[in-house]
Amino acid sequence: MVPLRTEWGRSMDPHVLADALQEHPETQLVVGIHAETSAGTLHPIAEFARLAHEAGAMFMTDVVTSLAGCELEFDEWDLDFAYSGSQKCLAAPPGISPVALSERGLDYIRNRPKPPTSWYLDLQLIADYWGPDHIAHHTAPVSMIYGLREAVGMALNEGLSARWERHAANASALRAGLRALNLELPVPEDERLDQLTLVRLPKGVDDVKLRNQLLDEYSIEVGRGLGEFAGKIIRVGLMGESCVPANVFALLNALEKILPEHGFEVANGVAAAAASAQLVKHPSPLFTG
Amino acid sequence: MVPLRTEWGRSMDPHVLADALQEHPETQLVVGIHAETSAGTLHPIAEFARLAHEAGAMFMTDVVTSLAGCELEFDEWDLDFAYSGSQKCLAAPPGISPVALSERGLDYIRNRPKPPTSWYLDLQLIADYWGPDHIAHHTAPVSMIYGLREAVGMALNEGLSARWERHAANASALRAGLRALNLELPVPEDERLDQLTLVRLPKGVDDVKLRNQLLDEYSIEVGRGLGEFAGKIIRVGLMGESCVPANVFALLNALEKILPEHGFEVANGVAAAAASAQLVKHPSPLFTG
Repeated sequence: MVPLRTEWGRSMDPHVLADALQEHPETQLVVGIHAETSAGTLHPIAEFARLAHEAGAMFMTDVVTSLAGCELEFDEWDLDFAYSGSQKCLAAPPGISPVALSERGLDYIRNRPKPPTSWYLDLQLIADYWGPDHIAHHTAPVSMIYGLREAVGMALNEGLSARWERHAANASALRAGLRALNLELPVPEDERLDQLTLVRLPKGVDDVKLRNQLLDEYSIEVGRGLGEFAGKIIRVGLMGESCVPANVFALLNALEKILPEHGFEVANGVAAAAASAQLVKHPSPLFTG
Repeated sequence: MVPLRTEWGRSMDPHVLADALQEHPETQLVVGIHAETSAGTLHPIAEFARLAHEAGAMFMTDVVTSLAGCELEFDEWDLDFAYSGSQKCLAAPPGISPVALSERGLDYIRNRPKPPTSWYLDLQLIADYWGPDHIAHHTAPVSMIYGLREAVGMALNEGLSARWERHAANASALRAGLRALNLELPVPEDERLDQLTLVRLPKGVDDVKLRNQLLDEYSIEVGRGLGEFAGKIIRVGLMGESCVPANVFALLNALEKILPEHGFEVANGVAAAAASAQLVKHPSPLFTG
Protein backbone atom coordinates (compact mmCIF):
# COMPACT_ATOMS: atom_id res chain seq x y z
CA MET A 1 0.00 0.00 0.00
CA VAL A 2 1.29 3.45 -0.95
CA PRO A 3 -0.40 6.19 1.11
CA LEU A 4 -0.79 9.57 -0.61
CA ARG A 5 -1.34 12.49 1.73
CA THR A 6 -2.36 16.11 1.41
CA GLU A 7 -2.45 19.04 3.81
CA TRP A 8 -5.31 19.01 6.36
CA GLY A 9 -8.21 21.00 4.96
CA ARG A 10 -7.09 20.78 1.33
CA SER A 11 -8.27 18.65 -1.59
CA MET A 12 -5.92 16.07 -3.03
CA ASP A 13 -4.26 17.33 -6.21
CA PRO A 14 -4.76 14.68 -8.95
CA HIS A 15 -1.14 15.24 -10.08
CA VAL A 16 0.02 13.59 -6.87
CA LEU A 17 -1.94 10.48 -7.85
CA ALA A 18 -0.74 10.64 -11.47
CA ASP A 19 2.92 10.75 -10.31
CA ALA A 20 2.39 7.89 -7.84
CA LEU A 21 0.77 5.74 -10.53
CA GLN A 22 3.73 6.34 -12.81
CA GLU A 23 6.08 5.36 -10.02
CA HIS A 24 4.01 2.24 -9.21
CA PRO A 25 2.77 0.82 -12.53
CA GLU A 26 1.86 -2.46 -10.77
CA THR A 27 -1.00 -0.69 -8.90
CA GLN A 28 -4.22 -2.69 -9.00
CA LEU A 29 -6.52 -0.55 -6.91
CA VAL A 30 -6.69 3.16 -6.11
CA VAL A 31 -8.75 4.15 -3.08
CA GLY A 32 -9.87 7.73 -2.49
CA ILE A 33 -12.52 9.35 -0.35
CA HIS A 34 -15.10 11.66 -1.90
CA ALA A 35 -16.38 13.87 0.93
CA GLU A 36 -13.81 13.87 3.74
CA THR A 37 -15.56 14.70 7.00
CA SER A 38 -12.41 14.93 9.15
CA ALA A 39 -11.05 17.74 7.03
CA GLY A 40 -14.22 19.14 5.45
CA THR A 41 -12.92 18.69 1.92
CA LEU A 42 -14.31 17.44 -1.38
CA HIS A 43 -11.93 15.40 -3.54
CA PRO A 44 -12.00 15.14 -7.36
CA ILE A 45 -12.84 11.43 -7.50
CA ALA A 46 -13.96 11.48 -11.14
CA GLU A 47 -10.42 12.52 -12.01
CA PHE A 48 -8.94 9.89 -9.62
CA ALA A 49 -11.02 7.19 -11.35
CA ARG A 50 -9.89 8.35 -14.81
CA LEU A 51 -6.22 8.27 -13.78
CA ALA A 52 -6.59 4.87 -12.11
CA HIS A 53 -8.20 3.33 -15.21
CA GLU A 54 -5.56 4.86 -17.51
CA ALA A 55 -2.99 3.07 -15.35
CA GLY A 56 -4.89 -0.22 -15.54
CA ALA A 57 -6.10 -0.06 -11.92
CA MET A 58 -9.61 -0.07 -10.44
CA PHE A 59 -10.99 2.75 -8.31
CA MET A 60 -12.74 2.39 -4.96
CA THR A 61 -14.28 5.28 -3.06
CA ASP A 62 -15.91 6.15 0.25
CA VAL A 63 -19.11 8.09 -0.51
CA VAL A 64 -20.46 7.92 3.04
CA THR A 65 -21.01 11.65 3.35
CA SER A 66 -21.45 12.55 -0.31
CA LEU A 67 -24.33 10.22 -1.28
CA ALA A 68 -27.52 12.29 -1.64
CA GLY A 69 -25.72 15.44 -0.46
CA CYS A 70 -23.69 16.50 -3.48
CA GLU A 71 -23.15 15.46 -7.07
CA LEU A 72 -22.15 11.81 -7.34
CA GLU A 73 -22.31 9.97 -10.68
CA PHE A 74 -21.31 6.35 -10.20
CA ASP A 75 -21.68 5.31 -13.85
CA GLU A 76 -20.68 8.52 -15.57
CA TRP A 77 -17.54 8.86 -13.44
CA ASP A 78 -16.75 5.20 -14.08
CA LEU A 79 -16.29 4.23 -10.41
CA ASP A 80 -15.67 0.56 -9.56
CA PHE A 81 -16.51 0.25 -5.87
CA ALA A 82 -18.39 2.77 -3.74
CA TYR A 83 -19.69 2.33 -0.21
CA SER A 84 -21.85 4.64 1.82
CA GLY A 85 -23.90 4.92 5.00
CA SER A 86 -27.59 5.32 5.62
CA GLN A 87 -27.24 7.94 8.34
CA LYS A 88 -25.68 10.94 6.63
CA CYS A 89 -27.34 12.79 3.74
CA LEU A 90 -29.81 9.94 3.13
CA ALA A 91 -31.10 10.65 6.67
CA ALA A 92 -32.10 7.04 7.44
CA PRO A 93 -31.26 5.38 10.76
CA PRO A 94 -27.61 4.26 11.04
CA GLY A 95 -26.76 0.59 10.70
CA ILE A 96 -26.88 -0.26 7.01
CA SER A 97 -24.44 0.45 4.25
CA PRO A 98 -25.42 0.86 0.58
CA VAL A 99 -22.67 -0.24 -1.80
CA ALA A 100 -22.27 -0.06 -5.57
CA LEU A 101 -20.00 -2.10 -7.84
CA SER A 102 -19.20 -1.70 -11.52
CA GLU A 103 -19.40 -4.74 -13.80
CA ARG A 104 -15.60 -4.70 -13.74
CA GLY A 105 -15.61 -4.68 -9.93
CA LEU A 106 -18.15 -7.49 -9.70
CA ASP A 107 -16.13 -9.59 -12.19
CA TYR A 108 -13.08 -9.12 -10.01
CA ILE A 109 -14.98 -10.21 -6.89
CA ARG A 110 -16.43 -13.22 -8.72
CA ASN A 111 -13.05 -14.39 -9.96
CA ARG A 112 -10.87 -13.78 -6.94
CA PRO A 113 -8.26 -16.52 -6.75
CA LYS A 114 -8.33 -16.42 -2.91
CA PRO A 115 -11.54 -16.00 -0.91
CA PRO A 116 -11.49 -13.22 1.71
CA THR A 117 -10.46 -14.23 5.24
CA SER A 118 -13.55 -12.62 6.73
CA TRP A 119 -17.08 -13.78 6.20
CA TYR A 120 -18.56 -10.41 7.10
CA LEU A 121 -18.27 -8.44 3.88
CA ASP A 122 -17.65 -11.29 1.46
CA LEU A 123 -19.40 -9.72 -1.51
CA GLN A 124 -19.34 -12.98 -3.44
CA LEU A 125 -21.41 -14.65 -0.71
CA ILE A 126 -23.64 -11.60 -0.41
CA ALA A 127 -24.17 -11.61 -4.19
CA ASP A 128 -25.27 -15.26 -3.95
CA TYR A 129 -27.70 -14.19 -1.24
CA TRP A 130 -29.20 -11.35 -3.30
CA GLY A 131 -29.11 -13.38 -6.50
CA PRO A 132 -31.72 -15.84 -7.77
CA ASP A 133 -30.19 -18.71 -5.72
CA HIS A 134 -30.73 -16.77 -2.48
CA ILE A 135 -28.15 -18.78 -0.53
CA ALA A 136 -28.34 -17.72 3.12
CA HIS A 137 -25.52 -15.39 4.15
CA HIS A 138 -27.15 -13.56 7.06
CA THR A 139 -30.57 -12.80 8.47
CA ALA A 140 -31.40 -9.54 6.73
CA PRO A 141 -31.95 -6.49 8.99
CA VAL A 142 -35.53 -6.11 7.77
CA SER A 143 -36.48 -2.94 9.65
CA MET A 144 -33.24 -1.24 8.52
CA ILE A 145 -34.03 -2.14 4.91
CA TYR A 146 -37.54 -0.68 5.21
CA GLY A 147 -36.01 2.46 6.76
CA LEU A 148 -33.47 2.76 3.97
CA ARG A 149 -36.15 2.17 1.34
CA GLU A 150 -38.26 4.98 2.81
CA ALA A 151 -35.26 7.32 2.97
CA VAL A 152 -34.27 6.56 -0.62
CA GLY A 153 -37.90 7.16 -1.66
CA MET A 154 -37.86 10.53 0.09
CA ALA A 155 -34.60 11.46 -1.63
CA LEU A 156 -35.96 10.48 -5.04
CA ASN A 157 -39.23 12.32 -4.42
CA GLU A 158 -37.25 15.43 -3.58
CA GLY A 159 -35.06 14.86 -6.65
CA LEU A 160 -31.32 14.37 -6.35
CA SER A 161 -30.48 17.71 -8.00
CA ALA A 162 -32.86 19.56 -5.69
CA ARG A 163 -31.31 17.76 -2.72
CA TRP A 164 -27.78 18.71 -3.79
CA GLU A 165 -29.01 22.27 -4.35
CA ARG A 166 -30.55 22.32 -0.86
CA HIS A 167 -27.25 21.29 0.69
CA ALA A 168 -25.40 23.94 -1.35
CA ALA A 169 -27.86 26.73 -0.47
CA ASN A 170 -27.91 26.11 3.27
CA ALA A 171 -24.14 25.67 3.45
CA SER A 172 -23.75 28.94 1.64
CA ALA A 173 -26.12 30.72 4.07
CA LEU A 174 -24.25 29.22 7.02
CA ARG A 175 -20.92 30.43 5.67
CA ALA A 176 -22.28 33.92 5.02
CA GLY A 177 -23.39 34.07 8.66
CA LEU A 178 -20.10 32.70 9.99
CA ARG A 179 -18.11 35.22 7.95
CA ALA A 180 -20.32 38.02 9.29
CA LEU A 181 -19.25 36.89 12.79
CA ASN A 182 -15.63 37.26 11.62
CA LEU A 183 -15.05 33.53 11.98
CA GLU A 184 -12.51 31.89 9.73
CA LEU A 185 -13.31 28.91 7.48
CA PRO A 186 -10.06 27.00 7.06
CA VAL A 187 -10.96 25.08 3.90
CA PRO A 188 -10.53 27.02 0.61
CA GLU A 189 -13.86 27.90 -1.00
CA ASP A 190 -13.72 25.55 -3.99
CA GLU A 191 -12.49 22.58 -1.92
CA ARG A 192 -15.22 22.75 0.74
CA LEU A 193 -18.00 20.32 1.49
CA ASP A 194 -21.56 21.62 1.63
CA GLN A 195 -22.53 18.83 4.04
CA LEU A 196 -19.94 19.75 6.66
CA THR A 197 -18.37 23.11 7.38
CA LEU A 198 -15.17 23.57 9.36
CA VAL A 199 -14.99 26.70 11.51
CA ARG A 200 -11.77 27.84 13.15
CA LEU A 201 -12.19 28.67 16.84
CA PRO A 202 -11.08 32.22 17.70
CA LYS A 203 -8.15 32.51 20.15
CA GLY A 204 -9.21 31.83 23.70
CA VAL A 205 -12.38 29.94 22.81
CA ASP A 206 -12.24 26.51 24.39
CA ASP A 207 -13.32 23.69 22.10
CA VAL A 208 -14.89 21.40 24.71
CA LYS A 209 -16.67 24.18 26.63
CA LEU A 210 -18.14 25.63 23.45
CA ARG A 211 -19.39 22.29 22.18
CA ASN A 212 -20.83 21.27 25.54
CA GLN A 213 -22.59 24.62 25.88
CA LEU A 214 -24.09 24.30 22.40
CA LEU A 215 -25.34 20.83 23.28
CA ASP A 216 -26.58 21.55 26.82
CA GLU A 217 -28.15 24.97 26.27
CA TYR A 218 -29.22 24.80 22.63
CA SER A 219 -29.49 21.07 21.82
CA ILE A 220 -27.08 21.61 18.96
CA GLU A 221 -24.35 19.02 18.50
CA VAL A 222 -21.30 19.97 16.46
CA GLY A 223 -18.25 17.81 15.82
CA ARG A 224 -14.81 18.28 17.28
CA GLY A 225 -11.61 18.77 15.33
CA LEU A 226 -9.59 15.67 14.45
CA GLY A 227 -5.93 15.18 13.66
CA GLU A 228 -4.12 18.49 13.05
CA PHE A 229 -7.39 20.31 13.63
CA ALA A 230 -7.94 18.83 17.12
CA GLY A 231 -8.95 21.60 19.54
CA LYS A 232 -8.72 24.24 16.78
CA ILE A 233 -11.97 23.92 14.90
CA ILE A 234 -15.57 22.76 15.16
CA ARG A 235 -17.31 20.82 12.41
CA VAL A 236 -20.87 21.79 11.57
CA GLY A 237 -22.90 19.18 9.72
CA LEU A 238 -25.88 20.09 7.57
CA MET A 239 -26.95 16.73 6.19
CA GLY A 240 -30.18 15.20 5.02
CA GLU A 241 -33.18 16.36 7.00
CA SER A 242 -31.06 18.56 9.27
CA CYS A 243 -30.01 20.64 6.25
CA VAL A 244 -32.67 23.37 6.52
CA PRO A 245 -32.55 27.16 7.06
CA ALA A 246 -34.02 26.80 10.58
CA ASN A 247 -30.91 24.93 11.74
CA VAL A 248 -28.59 27.43 10.08
CA PHE A 249 -30.25 30.30 11.97
CA ALA A 250 -30.37 28.34 15.24
CA LEU A 251 -26.62 27.75 15.21
CA LEU A 252 -25.73 31.30 14.17
CA ASN A 253 -27.95 32.68 16.92
CA ALA A 254 -26.40 30.37 19.52
CA LEU A 255 -22.87 31.33 18.46
CA GLU A 256 -23.79 35.01 18.62
CA LYS A 257 -24.93 34.52 22.20
CA ILE A 258 -22.10 32.22 23.32
CA LEU A 259 -18.96 33.64 21.68
CA PRO A 260 -18.90 36.93 23.69
CA GLU A 261 -19.11 34.82 26.89
CA HIS A 262 -15.88 33.21 25.71
CA GLY A 263 -14.27 36.63 25.13
CA PHE A 264 -14.88 36.87 21.38
CA GLU A 265 -17.06 39.93 20.69
CA VAL A 266 -19.55 39.85 17.82
CA ALA A 267 -22.01 42.46 16.54
CA ASN A 268 -25.67 41.72 17.25
CA GLY A 269 -27.79 40.23 14.47
CA VAL A 270 -25.19 40.42 11.73
CA ALA A 271 -24.95 36.67 11.28
CA ALA A 272 -28.67 36.09 10.90
CA ALA A 273 -28.90 39.11 8.57
CA ALA A 274 -26.09 37.79 6.37
CA ALA A 275 -27.55 34.28 6.24
CA SER A 276 -30.97 35.68 5.46
CA ALA A 277 -29.62 37.87 2.64
CA GLN A 278 -27.77 34.89 1.22
CA LEU A 279 -30.92 32.74 1.32
CA VAL A 280 -32.86 35.44 -0.55
CA LYS A 281 -30.17 35.44 -3.24
CA HIS A 282 -29.76 31.65 -3.27
CA PRO A 283 -32.88 30.08 -1.72
CA SER A 284 -32.93 26.59 -0.28
CA PRO A 285 -35.39 24.20 -1.96
CA LEU A 286 -38.00 23.18 0.59
CA PHE A 287 -37.44 19.88 2.38
CA THR A 288 -40.86 18.40 3.04
CA GLY A 289 -39.67 15.06 4.39
CA MET B 1 -9.37 -27.30 12.78
CA VAL B 2 -10.73 -30.71 13.74
CA PRO B 3 -14.43 -31.06 12.86
CA LEU B 4 -16.48 -33.34 15.12
CA ARG B 5 -19.72 -34.55 13.63
CA THR B 6 -22.80 -36.32 14.84
CA GLU B 7 -25.79 -37.87 13.13
CA TRP B 8 -28.38 -35.41 11.78
CA GLY B 9 -31.08 -34.90 14.40
CA ARG B 10 -28.97 -36.15 17.31
CA SER B 11 -27.15 -34.32 20.11
CA MET B 12 -23.36 -34.47 20.20
CA ASP B 13 -22.13 -37.02 22.73
CA PRO B 14 -19.57 -35.31 25.04
CA HIS B 15 -17.40 -38.47 24.87
CA VAL B 16 -16.65 -37.64 21.22
CA LEU B 17 -15.27 -34.30 22.35
CA ALA B 18 -13.37 -35.85 25.29
CA ASP B 19 -11.67 -38.33 22.93
CA ALA B 20 -10.80 -35.63 20.41
CA LEU B 21 -9.28 -33.44 23.13
CA GLN B 22 -7.13 -36.33 24.26
CA GLU B 23 -5.98 -36.91 20.71
CA HIS B 24 -5.29 -33.17 20.21
CA PRO B 25 -3.84 -31.85 23.48
CA GLU B 26 -2.68 -28.68 21.67
CA THR B 27 -6.32 -27.54 21.24
CA GLN B 28 -6.80 -23.89 22.16
CA LEU B 29 -10.46 -23.37 21.38
CA VAL B 30 -13.49 -25.64 21.28
CA VAL B 31 -16.53 -24.35 19.38
CA GLY B 32 -19.97 -25.89 19.79
CA ILE B 33 -23.48 -24.77 19.01
CA HIS B 34 -26.13 -24.73 21.73
CA ALA B 35 -29.49 -24.89 19.91
CA GLU B 36 -28.93 -26.25 16.41
CA THR B 37 -31.73 -25.04 14.14
CA SER B 38 -30.77 -27.10 11.09
CA ALA B 39 -31.21 -30.34 13.01
CA GLY B 40 -33.55 -29.26 15.81
CA THR B 41 -31.20 -30.46 18.54
CA LEU B 42 -29.98 -29.15 21.86
CA HIS B 43 -26.32 -29.80 22.69
CA PRO B 44 -24.83 -30.18 26.20
CA ILE B 45 -22.62 -27.08 26.04
CA ALA B 46 -22.06 -26.91 29.81
CA GLU B 47 -20.35 -30.29 29.50
CA PHE B 48 -18.43 -29.17 26.38
CA ALA B 49 -17.13 -26.13 28.29
CA ARG B 50 -16.08 -28.27 31.25
CA LEU B 51 -14.16 -30.68 28.99
CA ALA B 52 -12.53 -27.83 27.05
CA HIS B 53 -11.31 -26.13 30.23
CA GLU B 54 -10.01 -29.42 31.66
CA ALA B 55 -7.93 -29.72 28.49
CA GLY B 56 -6.66 -26.13 28.81
CA ALA B 57 -8.77 -24.79 25.92
CA MET B 58 -11.41 -22.06 25.82
CA PHE B 59 -15.01 -22.64 24.77
CA MET B 60 -17.00 -20.60 22.26
CA THR B 61 -20.66 -21.17 21.50
CA ASP B 62 -23.43 -20.05 19.17
CA VAL B 63 -26.47 -19.21 21.30
CA VAL B 64 -28.43 -17.56 18.48
CA THR B 65 -31.54 -19.66 18.99
CA SER B 66 -31.15 -20.53 22.65
CA LEU B 67 -30.87 -17.06 24.19
CA ALA B 68 -34.14 -16.23 26.00
CA GLY B 69 -35.75 -19.48 24.75
CA CYS B 70 -34.21 -22.14 26.99
CA GLU B 71 -31.86 -22.38 29.94
CA LEU B 72 -28.55 -20.65 29.26
CA GLU B 73 -26.16 -19.80 32.10
CA PHE B 74 -23.13 -17.99 30.73
CA ASP B 75 -21.33 -17.60 34.07
CA GLU B 76 -22.40 -20.78 35.81
CA TRP B 77 -21.52 -22.93 32.78
CA ASP B 78 -18.19 -21.08 32.51
CA LEU B 79 -18.52 -20.19 28.83
CA ASP B 80 -15.83 -17.99 27.25
CA PHE B 81 -17.40 -16.59 24.09
CA ALA B 82 -21.10 -16.63 23.19
CA TYR B 83 -22.82 -14.84 20.33
CA SER B 84 -26.50 -14.54 19.59
CA GLY B 85 -29.03 -12.74 17.43
CA SER B 86 -31.78 -10.30 18.23
CA GLN B 87 -34.39 -11.88 15.99
CA LYS B 88 -35.00 -15.31 17.49
CA CYS B 89 -36.29 -15.85 21.06
CA LEU B 90 -35.55 -12.24 22.02
CA ALA B 91 -38.07 -11.23 19.33
CA ALA B 92 -36.36 -7.94 18.42
CA PRO B 93 -35.82 -6.87 14.79
CA PRO B 94 -32.94 -8.68 13.07
CA GLY B 95 -29.68 -6.85 12.49
CA ILE B 96 -27.84 -6.76 15.81
CA SER B 97 -25.89 -9.45 17.60
CA PRO B 98 -25.49 -9.60 21.39
CA VAL B 99 -22.19 -11.20 22.44
CA ALA B 100 -20.75 -12.20 25.80
CA LEU B 101 -17.14 -12.81 26.78
CA SER B 102 -15.64 -14.23 29.94
CA GLU B 103 -12.77 -12.37 31.64
CA ARG B 104 -10.54 -15.12 30.25
CA GLY B 105 -11.90 -14.52 26.74
CA LEU B 106 -11.50 -10.76 26.99
CA ASP B 107 -7.92 -11.16 28.24
CA TYR B 108 -7.16 -13.32 25.24
CA ILE B 109 -8.64 -10.72 22.85
CA ARG B 110 -6.72 -7.91 24.56
CA ASN B 111 -3.41 -9.74 24.35
CA ARG B 112 -3.59 -11.24 20.89
CA PRO B 113 -0.12 -11.21 19.34
CA LYS B 114 -1.59 -10.61 15.84
CA PRO B 115 -4.56 -8.29 15.21
CA PRO B 116 -7.41 -9.83 13.19
CA THR B 117 -7.32 -9.29 9.42
CA SER B 118 -10.85 -7.95 9.38
CA TRP B 119 -11.98 -4.71 10.94
CA TYR B 120 -15.60 -5.83 11.15
CA LEU B 121 -15.68 -7.86 14.34
CA ASP B 122 -12.42 -6.76 15.90
CA LEU B 123 -13.56 -7.07 19.52
CA GLN B 124 -10.50 -5.17 20.76
CA LEU B 125 -11.52 -2.13 18.72
CA ILE B 126 -15.16 -2.58 19.71
CA ALA B 127 -14.13 -2.78 23.39
CA ASP B 128 -12.27 0.53 22.97
CA TYR B 129 -15.46 1.98 21.51
CA TRP B 130 -17.65 0.80 24.39
CA GLY B 131 -15.02 1.60 27.00
CA PRO B 132 -14.36 4.96 28.68
CA ASP B 133 -12.12 6.13 25.79
CA HIS B 134 -14.99 5.71 23.32
CA ILE B 135 -12.69 5.53 20.29
CA ALA B 136 -14.86 5.53 17.15
CA HIS B 137 -15.20 2.09 15.56
CA HIS B 138 -18.50 2.48 13.75
CA THR B 139 -21.61 4.63 13.79
CA ALA B 140 -23.83 2.74 16.20
CA PRO B 141 -27.13 1.42 14.81
CA VAL B 142 -29.13 3.53 17.25
CA SER B 143 -32.63 2.35 16.37
CA MET B 144 -31.50 -1.29 16.52
CA ILE B 145 -30.06 -0.71 19.98
CA TYR B 146 -33.32 0.86 21.18
CA GLY B 147 -35.20 -2.11 19.71
CA LEU B 148 -32.90 -4.60 21.43
CA ARG B 149 -33.16 -2.70 24.73
CA GLU B 150 -36.95 -2.86 24.54
CA ALA B 151 -36.88 -6.57 23.71
CA VAL B 152 -34.48 -7.34 26.54
CA GLY B 153 -36.71 -5.33 28.88
CA MET B 154 -39.73 -7.36 27.78
CA ALA B 155 -37.83 -10.61 28.36
CA LEU B 156 -36.73 -9.51 31.82
CA ASN B 157 -40.24 -8.33 32.71
CA GLU B 158 -41.56 -11.73 31.72
CA GLY B 159 -38.76 -13.38 33.68
CA LEU B 160 -36.26 -15.68 32.02
CA SER B 161 -37.55 -18.83 33.76
CA ALA B 162 -41.14 -18.02 32.76
CA ARG B 163 -39.96 -17.43 29.21
CA TRP B 164 -38.14 -20.77 29.07
CA GLU B 165 -41.23 -22.40 30.57
CA ARG B 166 -43.43 -20.76 27.92
CA HIS B 167 -41.24 -22.19 25.15
CA ALA B 168 -41.32 -25.63 26.78
CA ALA B 169 -45.10 -25.64 27.30
CA ASN B 170 -46.02 -24.56 23.77
CA ALA B 171 -43.50 -26.94 22.19
CA SER B 172 -44.96 -29.74 24.22
CA ALA B 173 -48.51 -28.85 23.11
CA LEU B 174 -47.36 -28.70 19.49
CA ARG B 175 -45.75 -32.13 19.74
CA ALA B 176 -48.84 -33.63 21.35
CA GLY B 177 -50.89 -32.34 18.42
CA LEU B 178 -48.42 -33.56 15.82
CA ARG B 179 -48.30 -37.02 17.38
CA ALA B 180 -52.10 -37.11 17.35
CA LEU B 181 -51.89 -36.54 13.58
CA ASN B 182 -49.58 -39.60 13.41
CA LEU B 183 -46.68 -37.42 12.31
CA GLU B 184 -43.18 -38.47 13.22
CA LEU B 185 -40.73 -36.25 15.13
CA PRO B 186 -37.25 -37.36 14.05
CA VAL B 187 -35.29 -35.91 17.00
CA PRO B 188 -35.27 -38.07 20.18
CA GLU B 189 -37.34 -36.54 22.98
CA ASP B 190 -34.50 -35.52 25.32
CA GLU B 191 -32.37 -34.03 22.52
CA ARG B 192 -35.08 -31.79 21.07
CA LEU B 193 -35.28 -28.01 20.97
CA ASP B 194 -38.39 -26.34 22.32
CA GLN B 195 -37.83 -23.36 20.00
CA LEU B 196 -37.85 -25.41 16.81
CA THR B 197 -39.57 -28.70 16.12
CA LEU B 198 -38.68 -30.97 13.21
CA VAL B 199 -41.58 -32.89 11.66
CA ARG B 200 -41.05 -35.71 9.18
CA LEU B 201 -43.18 -35.38 6.04
CA PRO B 202 -45.37 -38.45 5.40
CA LYS B 203 -44.66 -40.34 2.17
CA GLY B 204 -46.09 -38.54 -0.85
CA VAL B 205 -46.33 -35.12 0.81
CA ASP B 206 -44.33 -32.64 -1.23
CA ASP B 207 -42.15 -30.33 0.84
CA VAL B 208 -42.37 -27.24 -1.38
CA LYS B 209 -46.11 -27.55 -2.09
CA LEU B 210 -46.91 -27.99 1.61
CA ARG B 211 -44.83 -25.03 2.70
CA ASN B 212 -46.17 -22.77 -0.05
CA GLN B 213 -49.74 -23.73 0.79
CA LEU B 214 -49.19 -23.01 4.49
CA LEU B 215 -47.77 -19.61 3.58
CA ASP B 216 -50.28 -18.64 0.88
CA GLU B 217 -53.48 -19.94 2.46
CA TYR B 218 -52.71 -19.64 6.18
CA SER B 219 -49.91 -17.03 6.44
CA ILE B 220 -47.84 -19.60 8.30
CA GLU B 221 -44.18 -19.85 7.34
CA VAL B 222 -42.30 -23.01 8.29
CA GLY B 223 -38.70 -23.82 7.45
CA ARG B 224 -37.48 -26.36 4.98
CA GLY B 225 -35.20 -29.29 5.72
CA LEU B 226 -31.47 -28.78 5.32
CA GLY B 227 -28.62 -31.21 4.67
CA GLU B 228 -29.69 -34.82 5.10
CA PHE B 229 -33.17 -33.63 6.01
CA ALA B 230 -33.68 -31.69 2.75
CA GLY B 231 -37.13 -32.45 1.32
CA LYS B 232 -37.88 -34.87 4.18
CA ILE B 233 -38.96 -32.62 7.03
CA ILE B 234 -40.40 -29.23 7.89
CA ARG B 235 -39.07 -27.10 10.73
CA VAL B 236 -41.62 -25.35 12.94
CA GLY B 237 -40.31 -22.42 14.95
CA LEU B 238 -42.00 -21.25 18.13
CA MET B 239 -39.76 -18.42 19.27
CA GLY B 240 -40.20 -15.25 21.25
CA GLU B 241 -43.54 -13.56 20.68
CA SER B 242 -44.63 -16.22 18.17
CA CYS B 243 -44.42 -18.87 20.90
CA VAL B 244 -48.06 -18.79 22.03
CA PRO B 245 -50.89 -21.37 22.08
CA ALA B 246 -52.76 -19.50 19.30
CA ASN B 247 -49.97 -20.26 16.85
CA VAL B 248 -49.78 -23.90 17.92
CA PHE B 249 -53.49 -24.34 17.23
CA ALA B 250 -53.32 -22.39 13.95
CA LEU B 251 -50.62 -24.69 12.55
CA LEU B 252 -52.27 -27.91 13.74
CA ASN B 253 -55.57 -26.82 12.20
CA ALA B 254 -53.88 -25.92 8.91
CA LEU B 255 -52.09 -29.28 8.77
CA GLU B 256 -55.33 -31.12 9.54
CA LYS B 257 -56.93 -29.36 6.57
CA ILE B 258 -53.99 -29.66 4.15
CA LEU B 259 -52.54 -33.13 4.78
CA PRO B 260 -55.54 -35.08 3.42
CA GLU B 261 -55.31 -32.96 0.23
CA HIS B 262 -51.79 -34.39 -0.10
CA GLY B 263 -53.06 -37.94 0.40
CA PHE B 264 -52.30 -38.30 4.10
CA GLU B 265 -55.56 -38.94 5.97
CA VAL B 266 -55.98 -37.56 9.50
CA ALA B 267 -58.85 -37.75 11.96
CA ASN B 268 -60.78 -34.52 12.49
CA GLY B 269 -60.01 -32.46 15.59
CA VAL B 270 -57.62 -34.89 17.21
CA ALA B 271 -54.63 -32.58 16.96
CA ALA B 272 -56.34 -29.58 18.56
CA ALA B 273 -57.78 -31.84 21.25
CA ALA B 274 -54.39 -33.31 22.07
CA ALA B 275 -52.70 -29.90 22.17
CA SER B 276 -55.50 -28.55 24.33
CA ALA B 277 -55.25 -31.46 26.77
CA GLN B 278 -51.49 -30.99 26.97
CA LEU B 279 -51.88 -27.26 27.66
CA VAL B 280 -54.32 -27.99 30.48
CA LYS B 281 -51.76 -30.37 32.01
CA HIS B 282 -48.79 -28.10 31.31
CA PRO B 283 -50.08 -24.55 30.75
CA SER B 284 -48.12 -21.89 28.89
CA PRO B 285 -47.31 -18.79 30.94
CA LEU B 286 -49.04 -15.80 29.36
CA PHE B 287 -46.97 -13.67 27.00
CA THR B 288 -48.23 -10.12 27.37
CA GLY B 289 -45.58 -8.48 25.17
